[in-house]
Amino acid sequence: MAKDLAHKKVTVHFNPDNVDIVVAKGENLLQAAIAAGVRLHASCGGSGTCGTCKVVIEKGDAETTRTTRISDEEYGRGVRQACQTRVLTDLTVYVPVESRLERAIVAREGKNVSAALATGWRFKPPLSKFYLELPPPTMTDNASDLSRLLRGLKQQYKLKNVGVDFDILKTLPGIVRRKNWRVTVTLLTTAVREGRKDDGRRLRIVNVEPGDTRERHYALAFDIGTTTVCGQLLDLNKGKILADSIEFNGQIPYGQDVITRIAQAQKPGGLKKLQTAVIDTINKVIDNLLAKSQVNLKDIGHMTLAGNTTMTELLLGVDPQYIRLAPYIPAANFFPPVEVRSLGIHLRKGALIFVFPAVSSYVGGDIVSGVIGTGMYQRNKLTFFLDIGTNGEIVIGNSDWLVTASCSAGPAFEGGGIRHGIVATDGAIEDFDIDEKTYEPKIGVIGKSKPKGICGSGLINTIARMMEAGVITRNGKFQHNLPTKRIRTGEDGYEYVMAWAPDTQIGRDIVLTEIDIENLIRAKAAMYAGCQTLSKSVGTSCAAFDQVIIAGAFGSHLNIKSAITIGLLPELPEDRFIFVGNGSLLGARLVSFSTDLLDDSRRIAAMMTNIELSDSADFMDSYTAAMFLPHTHADVFPEVTRKLSERQKNTGKRK
Amino acid sequence: MAKDLAHKKVTVHFNPDNVDIVVAKGENLLQAAIAAGVRLHASCGGSGTCGTCKVVIEKGDAETTRTTRISDEEYGRGVRQACQTRVLTDLTVYVPVESRLERAIVAREGKNVSAALATGWRFKPPLSKFYLELPPPTMTDNASDLSRLLRGLKQQYKLKNVGVDFDILKTLPGIVRRKNWRVTVTLLTTAVREGRKDDGRRLRIVNVEPGDTRERHYALAFDIGTTTVCGQLLDLNKGKILADSIEFNGQIPYGQDVITRIAQAQKPGGLKKLQTAVIDTINKVIDNLLAKSQVNLKDIGHMTLAGNTTMTELLLGVDPQYIRLAPYIPAANFFPPVEVRSLGIHLRKGALIFVFPAVSSYVGGDIVSGVIGTGMYQRNKLTFFLDIGTNGEIVIGNSDWLVTASCSAGPAFEGGGIRHGIVATDGAIEDFDIDEKTYEPKIGVIGKSKPKGICGSGLINTIARMMEAGVITRNGKFQHNLPTKRIRTGEDGYEYVMAWAPDTQIGRDIVLTEIDIENLIRAKAAMYAGCQTLSKSVGTSCAAFDQVIIAGAFGSHLNIKSAITIGLLPELPEDRFIFVGNGSLLGARLVSFSTDLLDDSRRIAAMMTNIELSDSADFMDSYTAAMFLPHTHADVFPEVTRKLSERQKNTGKRK
Repeated sequence: MAKDLAHKKVTVHFNPDNVDIVVAKGENLLQAAIAAGVRLHASCGGSGTCGTCKVVIEKGDAETTRTTRISDEEYGRGVRQACQTRVLTDLTVYVPVESRLERAIVAREGKNVSAALATGWRFKPPLSKFYLELPPPTMTDNASDLSRLLRGLKQQYKLKNVGVDFDILKTLPGIVRRKNWRVTVTLLTTAVREGRKDDGRRLRIVNVEPGDTRERHYALAFDIGTTTVCGQLLDLNKGKILADSIEFNGQIPYGQDVITRIAQAQKPGGLKKLQTAVIDTINKVIDNLLAKSQVNLKDIGHMTLAGNTTMTELLLGVDPQYIRLAPYIPAANFFPPVEVRSLGIHLRKGALIFVFPAVSSYVGGDIVSGVIGTGMYQRNKLTFFLDIGTNGEIVIGNSDWLVTASCSAGPAFEGGGIRHGIVATDGAIEDFDIDEKTYEPKIGVIGKSKPKGICGSGLINTIARMMEAGVITRNGKFQHNLPTKRIRTGEDGYEYVMAWAPDTQIGRDIVLTEIDIENLIRAKAAMYAGCQTLSKSVGTSCAAFDQVIIAGAFGSHLNIKSAITIGLLPELPEDRFIFVGNGSLLGARLVSFSTDLLDDSRRIAAMMTNIELSDSADFMDSYTAAMFLPHTHADVFPEVTRKLSERQKNTGKRK
Repeated sequence: MAKDLAHKKVTVHFNPDNVDIVVAKGENLLQAAIAAGVRLHASCGGSGTCGTCKVVIEKGDAETTRTTRISDEEYGRGVRQACQTRVLTDLTVYVPVESRLERAIVAREGKNVSAALATGWRFKPPLSKFYLELPPPTMTDNASDLSRLLRGLKQQYKLKNVGVDFDILKTLPGIVRRKNWRVTVTLLTTAVREGRKDDGRRLRIVNVEPGDTRERHYALAFDIGTTTVCGQLLDLNKGKILADSIEFNGQIPYGQDVITRIAQAQKPGGLKKLQTAVIDTINKVIDNLLAKSQVNLKDIGHMTLAGNTTMTELLLGVDPQYIRLAPYIPAANFFPPVEVRSLGIHLRKGALIFVFPAVSSYVGGDIVSGVIGTGMYQRNKLTFFLDIGTNGEIVIGNSDWLVTASCSAGPAFEGGGIRHGIVATDGAIEDFDIDEKTYEPKIGVIGKSKPKGICGSGLINTIARMMEAGVITRNGKFQHNLPTKRIRTGEDGYEYVMAWAPDTQIGRDIVLTEIDIENLIRAKAAMYAGCQTLSKSVGTSCAAFDQVIIAGAFGSHLNIKSAITIGLLPELPEDRFIFVGNGSLLGARLVSFSTDLLDDSRRIAAMMTNIELSDSADFMDSYTAAMFLPHTHADVFPEVTRKLSERQKNTGKRK
């Protein structure tokens, strides 16, 4: 049938975006939305199983394959899964707010970051500029242009054994003569044996420009996340951030998580499509950065890039298929510098990308970058590093050893798998208090608007506060006999109404369900059990940490007290916790400033011991024990347990 | 006018090739010939000044710009310069034998080459293959594919600190698993600091193949000459030549000499055109080599390439313009390894080209290659190396020092600038004797056919013999009062008829003119004066050479005695002379077999001192003195002079 329709064109109009797209009759509606630039969730990559891409067909005919994700009521209202729908006539489609892919607030940076920053590195970017005034050639001094350049570097800067990129030579004669033998040479410094400082340095000419261009010397640092791509433009003379920008990863339509994307990459042409999608995003971020600054593209000499292993391999066009199959093997742990143009990134020809090395399939360059950026590998202090994102990765160690693991926390901390969960954006419920008599809530919403959902940190605050108020029991169930109509029976069992329909942006009650609570408990249990298992494997315990560094989506918006109350973070004095925001971007930036740290990254990645939790009986025990609020074993959260018990007693007395 | 005609098509038929080509009305006839694959001389690059591209218009109309190169008689016969002619109607064009570009005989290899070959090198190609049987990964042994490979190299072959080409990683997961973790890894070995042996080696993975492919391990060696491109296919396991092939350099239509080609490269798009032309030739030679052997293209791992500085820069797409402008500066003396695909060469992606370093604009990688291949830089013996081609380059030295110069000998030794000069191909007069009574010649022709011209070695033999026979005086003039009708007055003064028209292939008398003799004297004088100047500059003399190595177009076909008689080669015992044929190809081949020699090439190029003769008063004096047969100063050719005087006396007595 699609065959018959393929030559006929129809128009799809998307609201509230108010954009049109012309497509062939029979086109998939999710693909039409992607083409129109309308961003939808599509967690499962278009297989129809997740139900996150729901839209409402307001006008026109479409053919759909109905799944259990669409209730009868929804079906009656014209709600369809975009990925399961084919366009038959001109359509008007409404995209509800909960199906829209929205951007987390950019400004979620860390606080007190300076307390956890790598130290002891020299400000020495991998690329450095040298200005030369060369004597013009004569019949007696007739060295080649290249030899003259190398001689100049030796005489004026004592630089010897300098190599050269082949492409430089092609235009060298014109360039050296353009400003009468005054040129600026850009040199790349690398360790002879990558990751070994003591073997001396290798220098290579990667750019030659007429005249003195030393003033203009920039680089880019990037974090390539599964959900978002963040970039910073750096001034290499001043060691400063000039601009930053964030965009959704263009791969989202191919699936919300790395596993789905790897599966998509196995389809014919799939790897190329996924690669192009993220490269397009990177180019868009670069455009944003240039638009925000006075910087010329040609003055950007290099790019450092950190991402999880799957993102890194997809970006580089490396076959990722064995990442998702036991025993979970990535193609490589480290990557040589790559020329931007070979990937389609719109920077100066010859500009290089330094890619952070990975530890394993599920502990990637983003974590190594965080470890480098926070300098935890440099200190004697026993540090617990956790990066909370779609996945949770943890590292424990000090300057002598580092162990790491990936915890399949699931997306709950980012609002995934939560009925009204959304990313931390305008309209997200972030703060929560409850009147312990009336059980009426007091919510704090990002942007002070009406709420449209709950973000991860809001969820943690809400559950912690409900635990204290006795609304949620320690096994994560609602006290359903409380005198409030906010606790009611919904389709997923008991639920608590956070906001009534008229007080919301979405026109429906925003609720917290017992399933939501269970999902959050699973997530926090995975993180905490990971921490315990890892600690135990090196003969220590969560109580021994001198420092806890929190990186990831929460920025500094995670309430430490709440996180301890629910049993996500170990019970330690609050001053031991440090937020670093995007640790991956932090490390990428510092490495752009210092070859010392670039060298370290390879060495540290190789030194980090990966513990495979999915294979560990210890982990399964710890996980089961952690499926309680805050924990089955009162002794690991003594203070929280004591307070909760006390309250319970008091409440009991009051009654 | 061309504008009006551009949309009309006409057909040009070339004889005796019997090929048609359809072109736009108004098309240049030389371009039409190139497009039709008809090879014409075009020494001046199509500017109309050389007159080597003459053709006969047999039928149809063409518009021509007449130059002084076309005599009235020729014009009447329909002779036109193809480069000055535009096609107006369908044409039939005859290409006379003297305008055809023909190939010198391939087999012009050296003899006794083994007496002058580099020694002391280990058979150790820059690329080597290692077979690995790796343990499959498990949950506990979950190193990345790359790490597993590196671990295998370390455990099985004690190879450490091995790097990797980025492109390898893209397909590595599939490749290691295809034959159950049995793979063959190809490693590239380079010196850490190129040209310094003592700094240790750098190893890099440049290819990984499933299974055991060690049996199939090949390389290519190329000499890129201004006129011809020679290639050899090498078996790196056996150290043997499997096939060789030679083709005209596709740049010839853009000019016969390097200066003309550089000028052409300055036109818009010119550099790209010239680059493409020679790359096409290289690809053709590769096709020939593969067709001659059972070798699969993907099993060729690298290519070593030697050429003069201009050929090297044009091939690499490097701007060559300052090579032809005083003070004659090339873009670079050395070139980093280049990926074949970046140049458009049809080898396996990632295969590398090693390009020989140059000394100066006019002493190129071909000479360095000759010096390396003949091992003259390794011996105590004082060696004189000369490469006679379109240009003549000379090197004097030993293991301690090397001086070099380029002599603008002109193309006489290759038959250029000689009325009936042709390259050494079938129909070329190569041997000559003369009856000292009748002055009738006895000629030896390559291929035993009727003659169609004289090649360079034939010219030297002819003039030497005529000197002995008293037909040519010591200032290069004919004894025009001899009793023979073979000496007559032609358009260029006196000339000697080597063959009467009916006895030739070209249907016209083949003659040797006084202008021809003068051109040859200029050429030999430049070579000899260069040798003298260079010797003097280092405090030695031509009489002191322990060894004379002759490379270049002559192969082993240069008659040493004749060459000494005319004063081209220094008067030394004949056993000191060694022919090596194509020295450039010889060096390229040996370097393919040994990284030791590859390292040496960069070091030796830097050690060779270039003397600029065009700037030297000494050279001008020597040159003037050498404009005599054999030389103005009898003492530098004592034996030749004695014999000639004796003969003269005897002849005088006989008379």
